[in-house]
Amino acid sequence: MGEEFKHLVLVKFKEGAAVEEILKGMENLVSEVEAVKSFEWGQEMEGPEMLTQGFTHAFLMTFENKEAHTAFVGHPKHVEFSATFSAAIDKIVVLDFPAIRAKPPLPA
Amino acid sequence: MGEEFKHLVLVKFKEGAAVEEILKGMENLVSEVEAVKSFEWGQEMEGPEMLTQGFTHAFLMTFENKEAHTAFVGHPKHVEFSATFSAAIDKIVVLDFPAIRAKPPLPA
Repeated sequence: MGEEFKHLVLVKFKEGAAVEEILKGMENLVSEVEAVKSFEWGQEMEGPEMLTQGFTHAFLMTFENKEAHTAFVGHPKHVEFSATFSAAIDKIVVLDFPAIRAKPPLPA
Repeated sequence: MGEEFKHLVLVKFKEGAAVEEILKGMENLVSEVEAVKSFEWGQEMEGPEMLTQGFTHAFLMTFENKEAHTAFVGHPKHVEFSATFSAAIDKIVVLDFPAIRAKPPLPA
């Protein structure tokens, strides 16, 4: 088993953004694009601004390896979705990285 | 199976911070505190500032449920580690949220 690759996105949506629609679009996207191995997301609306910095949603996609992530980024459905997504966000952080699993340890 | 709970931390370390030491401290922490079900982290140093906003590390802890997360936050080892950690960071985002898994779907 190779090193998994993560695509992590934190956003704060614009006031009045069609968030439900966008979430649905994202779920469709990841279910349609085979390169995405798993997808989890969540929403926090309660944390103190000092810690959340105003971000409300986290999206985490996992890929088998970096190549699968690259394929996803260039996939026409992703490119199309990104345009809609970008228009709806106030601020964003994106981190792409090989995942190191420290607990539980990976089987040898 | 209940709803898993995530503790997501993004940081930019201070110039000259003892990052290796801190990473080791975090791995010790999560291995010692039983409430932490799994722990993954990663580092991105290549992404464009426009996307990373200067953040370089992502830490993701998973808990069986919100109660386990609360127990972790109040755990003496976590409190102790947090002091060291806080002193080493330039900026941080923390999001705590129930995880929604959209792919693969959870077994019914």
